[in-house]
Amino acid sequence: MNYDKYSQGPCPIARALLRVGDSWTMLILRNASWGETRFDQFLKGLGISPNILTRRLGDLTDAGLLERRRYSERPPRDEYVLTPRGHELIPILQALGAWGAKHYGEGGTSRLVDAVSGKKVTPIVVDAVSGKPMSELETRVAPPARRA
Amino acid sequence: MNYDKYSQGPCPIARALLRVGDSWTMLILRNASWGETRFDQFLKGLGISPNILTRRLGDLTDAGLLERRRYSERPPRDEYVLTPRGHELIPILQALGAWGAKHYGEGGTSRLVDAVSGKKVTPIVVDAVSGKPMSELETRVAPPARRA
Repeated sequence: MNYDKYSQGPCPIARALLRVGDSWTMLILRNASWGETRFDQFLKGLGISPNILTRRLGDLTDAGLLERRRYSERPPRDEYVLTPRGHELIPILQALGAWGAKHYGEGGTSRLVDAVSGKKVTPIVVDAVSGKPMSELETRVAPPARRA
Repeated sequence: MNYDKYSQGPCPIARALLRVGDSWTMLILRNASWGETRFDQFLKGLGISPNILTRRLGDLTDAGLLERRRYSERPPRDEYVLTPRGHELIPILQALGAWGAKHYGEGGTSRLVDAVSGKKVTPIVVDAVSGKPMSELETRVAPPARRA
């Protein structure tokens, strides 16, 4: 990705992808949402190489999705915890998972369930105001609002 | 991404990312949702290199998100149109855009509006059954359901 081009442009999808438009990045966030926080947990859980993991954790921290916290002074060890901004991305990953389960679910996939009732939860994207599924809305992209 | 590992695994997020976990792929789908269909439109609209575009269009066609249609026999020319599966991904990109606008919106970003009323539309991920925002639900991941 051409950082300058996409970070300056008006499209918020491109700006988001600049921060999270990479499979490892998304999978690190997924694992963080399951409560993983430590380098070794991500390393083992993802089968990612240590140098890619180091780079992605740094990028996610810089972008404000993870917060680095020192949990041991001797030896010095950090853990990585989702920020509110990172937390807000998780439902989008869950919606992506629902789409993946529907279209690439051969042989069965893991399911998202309510932690209390155990009932299946199905993430869907709606318009916050009307509650209508986005798939039923006709939309268009308008240029940035002008400043007063 | 390790194709074998992620395509066989039970996580539907990983299976989805295997098909669309790349910024160019997502941006091609975004532009397709705007009505772009032709190689030259994507090339110009995205500033992508021709060989990467060729590869991504092939991958998206193989994954069933785009359908290749011949629109000229002489010279032979194809266009690429979103399939229903591809269309179903667009709301997720729109939710990603809302997240991007909220967190990386410095200087203003383009806005998604209702094509008829012109009112701002705000995509949010909710549980389809209860209508509750996913961010307010406590969920857990359950293993694939056993087959009867």
